[in-house]
Amino acid sequence: MSELREDGFLGGRLRITQPAHGYRSGADAVMLAAACPAEPGEAVLELGCGAGVASLCLGWRVPSVRLTGLERQGDYAKLARRNAAHNDVPLHVLTGELATMPAELRQQSFDHVIANPPYFMTGTRAADAGRNLSRQEDTPLAEWIDTALRRLNPGGMMTIIQRADRLDAIVMALSGRAGAVTILPIAARKDREAGRIILTARKGARTPLRLLAPFVMHGGDRHMRDGEDFSDAASAVLREGASMVQYFAKDS
Amino acid sequence: MSELREDGFLGGRLRITQPAHGYRSGADAVMLAAACPAEPGEAVLELGCGAGVASLCLGWRVPSVRLTGLERQGDYAKLARRNAAHNDVPLHVLTGELATMPAELRQQSFDHVIANPPYFMTGTRAADAGRNLSRQEDTPLAEWIDTALRRLNPGGMMTIIQRADRLDAIVMALSGRAGAVTILPIAARKDREAGRIILTARKGARTPLRLLAPFVMHGGDRHMRDGEDFSDAASAVLREGASMVQYFAKDS
Repeated sequence: MSELREDGFLGGRLRITQPAHGYRSGADAVMLAAACPAEPGEAVLELGCGAGVASLCLGWRVPSVRLTGLERQGDYAKLARRNAAHNDVPLHVLTGELATMPAELRQQSFDHVIANPPYFMTGTRAADAGRNLSRQEDTPLAEWIDTALRRLNPGGMMTIIQRADRLDAIVMALSGRAGAVTILPIAARKDREAGRIILTARKGARTPLRLLAPFVMHGGDRHMRDGEDFSDAASAVLREGASMVQYFAKDS
Repeated sequence: MSELREDGFLGGRLRITQPAHGYRSGADAVMLAAACPAEPGEAVLELGCGAGVASLCLGWRVPSVRLTGLERQGDYAKLARRNAAHNDVPLHVLTGELATMPAELRQQSFDHVIANPPYFMTGTRAADAGRNLSRQEDTPLAEWIDTALRRLNPGGMMTIIQRADRLDAIVMALSGRAGAVTILPIAARKDREAGRIILTARKGARTPLRLLAPFVMHGGDRHMRDGEDFSDAASAVLREGASMVQYFAKDS
Protein backbone atom coordinates (compact mmCIF):
# COMPACT_ATOMS: atom_id res chain seq x y z
CA MET A 1 0.00 0.00 0.00
CA SER A 2 1.24 3.45 -0.96
CA GLU A 3 1.90 6.42 1.27
CA LEU A 4 -0.73 6.96 3.97
CA ARG A 5 -2.36 10.20 5.05
CA GLU A 6 -4.62 11.18 7.94
CA ASP A 7 -7.77 13.12 7.01
CA GLY A 8 -10.40 14.72 9.21
CA PHE A 9 -14.07 13.73 8.72
CA LEU A 10 -17.15 15.28 10.33
CA GLY A 11 -15.31 18.54 10.88
CA GLY A 12 -12.35 16.75 12.44
CA ARG A 13 -14.45 14.68 14.86
CA LEU A 14 -13.04 11.55 13.19
CA ARG A 15 -9.40 11.17 12.14
CA ILE A 16 -9.09 8.59 9.37
CA THR A 17 -5.88 7.20 7.91
CA GLN A 18 -6.19 6.33 4.23
CA PRO A 19 -3.82 5.84 1.32
CA ALA A 20 -2.85 9.21 -0.11
CA HIS A 21 -3.53 7.83 -3.58
CA GLY A 22 -5.78 5.09 -4.96
CA TYR A 23 -9.20 4.38 -3.50
CA ARG A 24 -10.11 7.01 -0.89
CA SER A 25 -13.42 7.45 0.86
CA GLY A 26 -14.98 10.89 0.92
CA ALA A 27 -18.31 12.65 1.04
CA ASP A 28 -20.21 9.65 -0.34
CA ALA A 29 -19.19 7.42 2.57
CA VAL A 30 -20.21 10.12 5.05
CA MET A 31 -23.62 10.52 3.38
CA LEU A 32 -24.14 6.77 3.30
CA ALA A 33 -23.68 6.69 7.08
CA ALA A 34 -25.91 9.74 7.55
CA ALA A 35 -28.75 8.08 5.60
CA CYS A 36 -28.72 4.74 7.44
CA PRO A 37 -31.62 4.67 9.92
CA ALA A 38 -29.88 2.33 12.38
CA GLU A 39 -31.03 2.69 15.98
CA PRO A 40 -29.05 2.09 19.17
CA GLY A 41 -28.34 -1.61 19.71
CA GLU A 42 -29.02 -2.64 16.10
CA ALA A 43 -26.54 -4.71 14.08
CA VAL A 44 -25.09 -3.14 10.93
CA LEU A 45 -22.93 -4.76 8.25
CA GLU A 46 -20.93 -2.65 5.81
CA LEU A 47 -19.99 -4.42 2.59
CA GLY A 48 -16.69 -3.16 1.22
CA CYS A 49 -15.84 -1.01 4.22
CA GLY A 50 -12.46 0.20 2.90
CA ALA A 51 -10.68 2.18 5.61
CA GLY A 52 -13.92 2.27 7.63
CA VAL A 53 -15.16 5.81 6.98
CA ALA A 54 -18.90 5.05 6.61
CA SER A 55 -19.07 2.60 9.52
CA LEU A 56 -17.11 4.91 11.81
CA CYS A 57 -19.30 7.91 10.91
CA LEU A 58 -22.37 5.79 11.72
CA GLY A 59 -20.82 4.60 14.98
CA TRP A 60 -20.03 8.20 15.91
CA ARG A 61 -23.69 9.26 15.33
CA VAL A 62 -25.35 6.16 16.85
CA PRO A 63 -22.85 5.15 19.52
CA SER A 64 -24.31 1.83 20.66
CA VAL A 65 -24.85 0.40 17.17
CA ARG A 66 -23.05 -2.94 16.59
CA LEU A 67 -20.81 -2.53 13.54
CA THR A 68 -19.27 -5.17 11.29
CA GLY A 69 -17.27 -4.40 8.15
CA LEU A 70 -16.32 -6.74 5.32
CA GLU A 71 -13.36 -5.76 3.15
CA ARG A 72 -11.66 -7.80 0.42
CA GLN A 73 -8.31 -6.03 0.58
CA GLY A 74 -6.28 -6.93 3.66
CA ASP A 75 -4.41 -3.63 3.82
CA TYR A 76 -7.66 -1.64 3.84
CA ALA A 77 -9.12 -3.99 6.47
CA LYS A 78 -6.07 -3.30 8.66
CA LEU A 79 -6.54 0.44 8.21
CA ALA A 80 -10.21 0.10 9.18
CA ARG A 81 -9.23 -1.69 12.41
CA ARG A 82 -6.59 0.95 13.17
CA ASN A 83 -9.03 3.80 12.44
CA ALA A 84 -11.69 2.21 14.67
CA ALA A 85 -9.23 1.90 17.57
CA HIS A 86 -7.84 5.40 17.04
CA ASN A 87 -11.32 6.94 17.06
CA ASP A 88 -12.59 4.71 19.87
CA VAL A 89 -15.53 3.42 17.77
CA PRO A 90 -16.05 -0.37 18.04
CA LEU A 91 -15.95 -1.91 14.53
CA HIS A 92 -15.43 -5.60 13.85
CA VAL A 93 -13.60 -5.92 10.52
CA LEU A 94 -13.45 -9.14 8.51
CA THR A 95 -11.35 -9.73 5.42
CA GLY A 96 -13.12 -11.56 2.64
CA GLU A 97 -14.89 -11.47 -0.69
CA LEU A 98 -18.60 -10.98 -1.29
CA ALA A 99 -18.76 -14.25 -3.22
CA THR A 100 -16.85 -16.28 -0.62
CA MET A 101 -18.17 -14.61 2.46
CA PRO A 102 -16.33 -15.51 5.70
CA ALA A 103 -18.07 -18.39 7.53
CA GLU A 104 -18.60 -16.18 10.57
CA LEU A 105 -20.71 -13.80 8.48
CA ARG A 106 -22.64 -16.51 6.67
CA GLN A 107 -24.20 -17.49 9.98
CA GLN A 108 -25.27 -13.98 10.92
CA SER A 109 -28.00 -11.64 9.81
CA PHE A 110 -28.23 -7.91 10.33
CA ASP A 111 -30.78 -5.16 10.88
CA HIS A 112 -28.99 -2.98 8.32
CA VAL A 113 -26.57 -3.47 5.48
CA ILE A 114 -24.81 -0.43 4.04
CA ALA A 115 -22.62 -0.24 0.95
CA ASN A 116 -20.88 2.20 -1.35
CA PRO A 117 -20.04 -0.17 -4.22
CA PRO A 118 -17.28 0.96 -6.61
CA TYR A 119 -18.61 3.33 -9.22
CA PHE A 120 -16.84 2.18 -12.34
CA MET A 121 -17.33 -1.43 -13.13
CA THR A 122 -16.29 -3.66 -15.99
CA GLY A 123 -18.73 -3.24 -18.80
CA THR A 124 -19.65 0.36 -18.09
CA ARG A 125 -18.31 3.31 -20.02
CA ALA A 126 -14.80 2.64 -21.24
CA ALA A 127 -13.60 6.24 -20.93
CA ASP A 128 -14.56 6.38 -17.27
CA ALA A 129 -13.15 2.95 -16.59
CA GLY A 130 -9.79 3.91 -18.03
CA ARG A 131 -9.58 7.13 -16.10
CA ASN A 132 -10.58 5.46 -12.88
CA LEU A 133 -8.84 2.14 -13.03
CA SER A 134 -8.29 2.16 -9.28
CA ARG A 135 -12.04 2.22 -8.70
CA GLN A 136 -12.74 -0.59 -11.10
CA GLU A 137 -14.00 -3.82 -9.62
CA ASP A 138 -14.86 -7.28 -10.87
CA THR A 139 -17.96 -7.65 -8.76
CA PRO A 140 -21.17 -6.60 -10.54
CA LEU A 141 -23.55 -4.32 -8.69
CA ALA A 142 -26.18 -7.08 -8.67
CA GLU A 143 -23.87 -9.20 -6.53
CA TRP A 144 -23.44 -6.46 -3.95
CA ILE A 145 -27.21 -6.19 -3.68
CA ASP A 146 -27.73 -9.94 -3.62
CA THR A 147 -25.19 -10.24 -0.82
CA ALA A 148 -26.78 -7.39 1.11
CA LEU A 149 -30.24 -8.99 0.88
CA ARG A 150 -28.91 -12.38 2.00
CA ARG A 151 -27.34 -10.90 5.12
CA LEU A 152 -30.42 -8.88 6.16
CA ASN A 153 -33.03 -9.97 8.68
CA PRO A 154 -36.56 -10.19 7.27
CA GLY A 155 -37.67 -6.54 7.28
CA GLY A 156 -34.06 -5.41 7.50
CA MET A 157 -32.97 -2.30 5.63
CA MET A 158 -30.39 -1.88 2.89
CA THR A 159 -28.85 1.57 2.38
CA ILE A 160 -26.66 2.11 -0.65
CA ILE A 161 -25.01 5.08 -2.36
CA GLN A 162 -24.30 4.79 -6.03
CA ARG A 163 -24.08 6.67 -9.32
CA ALA A 164 -27.54 7.85 -10.38
CA ASP A 165 -27.14 6.18 -13.76
CA ARG A 166 -27.05 2.75 -12.08
CA LEU A 167 -30.57 3.19 -10.70
CA ASP A 168 -31.93 0.72 -13.23
CA ALA A 169 -29.43 -1.99 -12.27
CA ILE A 170 -30.26 -1.52 -8.58
CA VAL A 171 -34.01 -1.65 -9.15
CA MET A 172 -33.66 -4.86 -11.14
CA ALA A 173 -31.45 -6.52 -8.55
CA LEU A 174 -34.00 -5.70 -5.82
CA SER A 175 -37.02 -6.87 -7.82
CA GLY A 176 -39.27 -9.27 -5.92
CA ARG A 177 -36.92 -9.42 -2.95
CA ALA A 178 -37.23 -6.01 -1.35
CA GLY A 179 -39.77 -3.20 -1.31
CA ALA A 180 -40.21 0.26 0.16
CA VAL A 181 -37.52 1.33 -2.31
CA THR A 182 -36.83 4.99 -1.53
CA ILE A 183 -34.58 7.06 -3.77
CA LEU A 184 -32.87 10.25 -2.60
CA PRO A 185 -31.30 11.98 -5.63
CA ILE A 186 -28.04 13.78 -4.82
CA ALA A 187 -27.51 16.78 -7.09
CA ALA A 188 -24.41 18.97 -7.23
CA ARG A 189 -26.62 22.03 -7.52
CA LYS A 190 -30.27 23.03 -7.54
CA ASP A 191 -31.84 22.32 -10.94
CA ARG A 192 -29.06 19.90 -11.93
CA GLU A 193 -29.65 16.25 -12.63
CA ALA A 194 -28.63 13.76 -9.96
CA GLY A 195 -25.04 12.52 -9.98
CA ARG A 196 -25.58 10.07 -7.15
CA ILE A 197 -28.51 8.41 -5.45
CA ILE A 198 -28.88 7.13 -1.94
CA LEU A 199 -31.36 4.26 -2.05
CA THR A 200 -32.95 2.44 0.86
CA ALA A 201 -35.00 -0.75 0.56
CA ARG A 202 -36.60 -3.11 3.04
CA LYS A 203 -36.12 -6.85 2.62
CA GLY A 204 -39.38 -8.65 1.86
CA ALA A 205 -41.51 -5.48 1.93
CA ARG A 206 -44.14 -4.76 -0.73
CA THR A 207 -44.55 -1.06 -0.01
CA PRO A 208 -44.40 1.06 -3.20
CA LEU A 209 -41.35 2.94 -4.39
CA ARG A 210 -40.80 6.61 -3.50
CA LEU A 211 -38.74 9.19 -5.39
CA LEU A 212 -37.73 11.98 -3.00
CA ALA A 213 -36.84 15.63 -3.57
CA PRO A 214 -33.11 15.98 -4.31
CA PHE A 215 -30.46 16.64 -1.71
CA VAL A 216 -28.39 19.54 -3.07
CA MET A 217 -24.67 19.54 -2.31
CA HIS A 218 -23.57 23.03 -3.26
CA GLY A 219 -25.14 26.41 -2.65
CA GLY A 220 -24.18 28.64 -5.54
CA ASP A 221 -24.84 28.42 -9.23
CA ARG A 222 -21.26 27.60 -10.12
CA HIS A 223 -18.53 25.51 -8.63
CA MET A 224 -15.93 27.51 -6.70
CA ARG A 225 -13.41 25.14 -5.18
CA ASP A 226 -14.06 21.69 -3.78
CA GLY A 227 -15.60 21.87 -0.36
CA GLU A 228 -15.83 25.64 -0.30
CA ASP A 229 -19.46 26.18 -1.13
CA PHE A 230 -21.47 23.39 0.45
CA SER A 231 -25.17 24.01 0.98
CA ASP A 232 -26.22 24.35 4.62
CA ALA A 233 -27.73 20.86 4.50
CA ALA A 234 -24.58 19.28 3.05
CA SER A 235 -22.36 21.16 5.46
CA ALA A 236 -24.39 19.89 8.42
CA VAL A 237 -23.96 16.31 7.22
CA LEU A 238 -20.31 16.47 6.17
CA ARG A 239 -18.90 18.79 8.84
CA GLU A 240 -21.16 18.21 11.83
CA GLY A 241 -22.23 14.60 11.38
CA ALA A 242 -25.95 15.41 11.02
CA SER A 243 -28.35 12.60 10.13
CA MET A 244 -30.08 12.42 6.75
CA VAL A 245 -32.75 10.01 7.98
CA GLN A 246 -35.38 12.77 8.13
CA TYR A 247 -35.19 13.19 4.35
CA PHE A 248 -36.60 9.69 3.99
CA ALA A 249 -39.63 10.38 6.21
CA LYS A 250 -43.02 10.65 4.52
CA ASP A 251 -44.09 14.14 3.46
CA SER A 252 -46.37 15.64 6.10
CA MET B 1 -71.36 7.57 -22.28
CA SER B 2 -72.50 10.01 -19.61
CA GLU B 3 -73.04 13.74 -19.94
CA LEU B 4 -70.36 15.53 -22.00
CA ARG B 5 -68.62 18.80 -21.25
CA GLU B 6 -66.31 21.06 -23.22
CA ASP B 7 -63.09 22.11 -21.44
CA GLY B 8 -60.38 24.53 -22.49
CA PHE B 9 -56.76 23.31 -22.63
CA LEU B 10 -53.61 25.38 -23.19
CA GLY B 11 -55.34 28.51 -21.97
CA GLY B 12 -58.34 27.89 -24.21
CA ARG B 13 -56.26 27.32 -27.37
CA LEU B 14 -57.80 23.83 -27.57
CA ARG B 15 -61.47 23.08 -26.85
CA ILE B 16 -61.89 19.44 -25.83
CA THR B 17 -65.15 17.60 -25.27
CA GLN B 18 -64.92 14.93 -22.59
CA PRO B 19 -67.35 13.07 -20.34
CA ALA B 20 -68.22 15.24 -17.35
CA HIS B 21 -67.60 12.23 -15.11
CA GLY B 22 -65.46 9.10 -15.34
CA TYR B 23 -62.07 9.13 -17.02
CA ARG B 24 -61.05 12.69 -17.89
CA SER B 25 -57.70 13.89 -19.19
CA GLY B 26 -56.03 16.79 -17.44
CA ALA B 27 -52.64 18.25 -16.66
CA ASP B 28 -50.87 14.91 -17.06
CA ALA B 29 -51.92 14.57 -20.70
CA VAL B 30 -50.79 18.14 -21.41
CA MET B 31 -47.39 17.50 -19.82
CA LEU B 32 -46.99 14.22 -21.71
CA ALA B 33 -47.41 16.16 -24.97
CA ALA B 34 -45.07 18.91 -23.78
CA ALA B 35 -42.31 16.39 -23.01
CA CYS B 36 -42.44 14.52 -26.33
CA PRO B 37 -39.50 15.65 -28.50
CA ALA B 38 -41.29 15.01 -31.80
CA GLU B 39 -40.09 17.15 -34.69
CA PRO B 40 -42.04 18.38 -37.71
CA GLY B 41 -42.84 15.52 -40.09
CA GLU B 42 -42.26 12.73 -37.56
CA ALA B 43 -44.82 10.00 -36.91
CA VAL B 44 -46.26 9.75 -33.40
CA LEU B 45 -48.51 7.04 -31.94
CA GLU B 46 -50.46 7.62 -28.75
CA LEU B 47 -51.50 4.46 -26.93
CA GLY B 48 -54.78 4.93 -25.07
CA CYS B 49 -55.52 8.37 -26.49
CA GLY B 50 -58.87 8.82 -24.72
CA ALA B 51 -60.55 11.98 -25.98
CA GLY B 52 -57.29 12.99 -27.66
CA VAL B 53 -55.94 15.64 -25.29
CA ALA B 54 -52.25 14.66 -25.39
CA SER B 55 -52.11 14.10 -29.15
CA LEU B 56 -53.98 17.33 -29.88
CA CYS B 57 -51.69 19.34 -27.56
CA LEU B 58 -48.69 17.86 -29.37
CA GLY B 59 -50.23 18.61 -32.78
CA TRP B 60 -50.88 22.18 -31.67
CA ARG B 61 -47.20 22.65 -30.64
CA VAL B 62 -45.63 20.76 -33.58
CA PRO B 63 -48.13 21.38 -36.36
CA SER B 64 -46.77 19.09 -39.07
CA VAL B 65 -46.33 16.03 -36.87
CA ARG B 66 -48.23 12.95 -38.11
CA LEU B 67 -50.50 11.78 -35.28
CA THR B 68 -52.15 8.40 -34.73
CA GLY B 69 -54.16 7.48 -31.63
CA LEU B 70 -55.21 4.04 -30.45
CA GLU B 71 -58.16 3.84 -28.03
CA ARG B 72 -59.94 0.73 -26.76
CA GLN B 73 -63.25 2.45 -25.95
CA GLY B 74 -65.26 3.35 -29.03
CA ASP B 75 -67.03 6.30 -27.44
CA TYR B 76 -63.71 7.92 -26.44
CA ALA B 77 -62.31 7.24 -29.92
CA LYS B 78 -65.31 9.06 -31.40
CA LEU B 79 -64.72 12.00 -29.07
CA ALA B 80 -61.05 12.10 -30.10
CA ARG B 81 -62.05 12.30 -33.78
CA ARG B 82 -64.59 15.01 -33.01
CA ASN B 83 -62.07 16.98 -30.93
CA ALA B 84 -59.45 16.69 -33.67
CA ALA B 85 -61.88 18.02 -36.30
CA HIS B 86 -63.18 20.78 -34.03
CA ASN B 87 -59.62 21.99 -33.26
CA ASP B 88 -58.40 21.50 -36.82
CA VAL B 89 -55.53 19.22 -35.74
CA PRO B 90 -55.13 16.11 -37.95
CA LEU B 91 -55.33 12.98 -35.75
CA HIS B 92 -55.98 9.49 -37.11
CA VAL B 93 -57.85 7.53 -34.43
CA LEU B 94 -58.14 3.75 -34.41
CA THR B 95 -60.27 1.70 -32.05
CA GLY B 96 -58.60 -1.38 -30.63
CA GLU B 97 -56.85 -3.08 -27.76
CA LEU B 98 -53.14 -3.09 -27.02
CA ALA B 99 -53.09 -6.89 -27.09
CA THR B 100 -55.03 -7.21 -30.35
CA MET B 101 -53.62 -4.20 -32.12
CA PRO B 102 -55.47 -3.23 -35.35
CA ALA B 103 -53.80 -4.79 -38.42
CA GLU B 104 -53.19 -1.32 -39.85
CA LEU B 105 -51.01 -0.46 -36.86
CA ARG B 106 -49.19 -3.77 -36.73
CA GLN B 107 -47.65 -2.92 -40.10
CA GLN B 108 -46.43 0.51 -39.05
CA SER B 109 -43.64 1.82 -36.91
CA PHE B 110 -43.28 5.27 -35.41
CA ASP B 111 -40.65 7.81 -34.46
CA HIS B 112 -42.39 8.39 -31.12
CA VAL B 113 -44.86 6.55 -28.94
CA ILE B 114 -46.54 8.47 -26.11
CA ALA B 115 -48.76 7.06 -23.36
CA ASN B 116 -50.44 8.01 -20.10
CA PRO B 117 -51.39 4.52 -18.88
CA PRO B 118 -54.16 4.33 -16.25
CA TYR B 119 -52.81 4.92 -12.77
CA PHE B 120 -54.68 2.34 -10.72
CA MET B 121 -54.33 -1.16 -11.95
CA THR B 122 -55.52 -4.52 -10.70
CA GLY B 123 -53.11 -5.77 -8.11
CA THR B 124 -52.05 -2.37 -6.85
CA ARG B 125 -53.40 -0.80 -3.73
CA ALA B 126 -56.96 -1.90 -3.05
CA ALA B 127 -58.07 1.34 -1.43
CA ASP B 128 -57.05 3.38 -4.44
CA ALA B 129 -58.56 0.85 -6.82
CA GLY B 130 -61.92 1.02 -5.08
CA ARG B 131 -61.98 4.79 -5.04
CA ASN B 132 -60.92 5.01 -8.66
CA LEU B 133 -62.77 2.17 -10.29
CA SER B 134 -63.21 4.20 -13.47
CA ARG B 135 -59.43 4.45 -13.89
CA GLN B 136 -58.88 0.76 -13.34
CA GLU B 137 -57.64 -1.25 -16.26
CA ASP B 138 -56.87 -4.87 -16.94
CA THR B 139 -53.74 -4.17 -18.93
CA PRO B 140 -50.55 -4.30 -16.88
CA LEU B 141 -48.06 -1.46 -17.29
CA ALA B 142 -45.52 -3.89 -18.76
CA GLU B 143 -47.87 -4.51 -21.67
CA TRP B 144 -48.18 -0.79 -22.42
CA ILE B 145 -44.40 -0.55 -22.56
CA ASP B 146 -44.00 -3.73 -24.56
CA THR B 147 -46.52 -2.44 -27.10
CA ALA B 148 -44.81 0.95 -27.26
CA LEU B 149 -41.43 -0.65 -27.92
CA ARG B 150 -42.84 -2.92 -30.63
CA ARG B 151 -44.34 0.02 -32.51
CA LEU B 152 -41.18 2.18 -32.36
CA ASN B 153 -38.57 2.48 -35.10
CA PRO B 154 -35.07 1.45 -34.04
CA GLY B 155 -33.84 4.51 -32.15
CA GLY B 156 -37.42 5.72 -31.72
CA MET B 157 -38.42 7.42 -28.50
CA MET B 158 -41.04 6.44 -25.92
CA THR B 159 -42.46 9.16 -23.68
CA ILE B 160 -44.68 8.11 -20.79
CA ILE B 161 -46.24 9.80 -17.77
CA GLN B 162 -46.99 7.65 -14.78
CA ARG B 163 -47.18 7.55 -10.98
CA ALA B 164 -43.71 7.89 -9.50
CA ASP B 165 -44.17 4.72 -7.47
CA ARG B 166 -44.36 2.68 -10.70
CA LEU B 167 -40.82 3.66 -11.69
CA ASP B 168 -39.57 0.19 -10.82
CA ALA B 169 -42.15 -1.53 -13.03
CA ILE B 170 -41.28 0.76 -15.94
CA VAL B 171 -37.53 0.23 -15.57
CA MET B 172 -38.01 -3.53 -15.54
CA ALA B 173 -40.24 -3.52 -18.60
CA LEU B 174 -37.64 -1.48 -20.52
CA SER B 175 -34.69 -3.62 -19.46
CA GLY B 176 -32.49 -4.75 -22.33
CA ARG B 177 -34.82 -3.25 -24.93
CA ALA B 178 -34.37 0.49 -24.52
CA GLY B 179 -31.75 2.82 -23.10
CA ALA B 180 -31.16 6.52 -22.55
CA VAL B 181 -33.85 6.23 -19.89
CA THR B 182 -34.41 9.77 -18.62
CA ILE B 183 -36.62 10.42 -15.63
CA LEU B 184 -38.22 13.82 -14.93
CA PRO B 185 -39.75 13.75 -11.44
CA ILE B 186 -42.95 15.83 -11.15
CA ALA B 187 -43.41 17.21 -7.63
CA ALA B 188 -46.44 19.11 -6.34
CA ARG B 189 -44.12 21.51 -4.51
CA LYS B 190 -40.44 22.22 -4.01
CA ASP B 191 -38.92 19.80 -1.51
CA ARG B 192 -41.79 17.31 -1.89
CA GLU B 193 -41.33 13.80 -3.21
CA ALA B 194 -42.41 13.11 -6.77
CA GLY B 195 -46.05 12.16 -7.39
CA ARG B 196 -45.56 11.52 -11.08
CA ILE B 197 -42.68 10.92 -13.42
CA ILE B 198 -42.29 11.64 -17.10
CA LEU B 199 -39.93 9.06 -18.52
CA THR B 200 -38.36 8.96 -21.97
CA ALA B 201 -36.41 6.02 -23.38
CA ARG B 202 -34.85 5.27 -26.74
CA LYS B 203 -35.46 1.86 -28.33
CA GLY B 204 -32.27 -0.17 -28.64
CA ALA B 205 -30.04 2.50 -27.07
CA ARG B 206 -27.42 1.62 -24.47
CA THR B 207 -26.88 5.14 -23.14
CA PRO B 208 -27.00 5.29 -19.31
CA LEU B 209 -30.00 6.37 -17.28
CA ARG B 210 -30.43 9.98 -16.13
CA LEU B 211 -32.41 11.28 -13.14
CA LEU B 212 -33.31 14.93 -13.72
CA ALA B 213 -34.08 17.77 -11.32
CA PRO B 214 -37.79 17.80 -10.47
CA PHE B 215 -40.41 19.81 -12.32
CA VAL B 216 -42.39 21.63 -9.64
CA MET B 217 -46.11 22.16 -10.25
CA HIS B 218 -47.12 24.67 -7.61
CA GLY B 219 -45.43 27.80 -6.37
CA GLY B 220 -46.36 28.23 -2.73
CA ASP B 221 -45.78 26.07 0.31
CA ARG B 222 -49.39 25.05 0.64
CA HIS B 223 -52.16 24.11 -1.71
CA MET B 224 -54.65 26.91 -2.33
CA ARG B 225 -57.22 25.78 -4.87
CA ASP B 226 -56.66 23.55 -7.86
CA GLY B 227 -55.09 25.47 -10.68
CA GLU B 228 -54.75 28.69 -8.74
CA ASP B 229 -51.12 28.59 -7.73
CA PHE B 230 -49.17 26.97 -10.55
CA SER B 231 -45.44 27.65 -10.72
CA ASP B 232 -44.33 29.82 -13.64
CA ALA B 233 -42.94 26.73 -15.37
CA ALA B 234 -46.16 24.72 -14.94
CA SER B 235 -48.28 27.67 -16.01
CA ALA B 236 -46.24 28.06 -19.21
CA VAL B 237 -46.82 24.40 -20.06
CA LEU B 238 -50.47 24.12 -19.05
CA ARG B 239 -51.78 27.54 -20.12
CA GLU B 240 -49.50 28.53 -22.97
CA GLY B 241 -48.55 25.17 -24.48
CA ALA B 242 -44.82 25.56 -23.78
CA SER B 243 -42.52 22.63 -24.51
CA MET B 244 -40.83 20.65 -21.71
CA VAL B 245 -38.24 19.17 -24.05
CA GLN B 246 -35.50 21.49 -22.74
CA TYR B 247 -35.73 19.89 -19.30
CA PHE B 248 -34.44 16.67 -20.85
CA ALA B 249 -31.36 18.32 -22.39
CA LYS B 250 -27.97 17.55 -20.85
CA ASP B 251 -26.81 19.94 -18.12
CA SER B 252 -24.44 22.49 -19.58
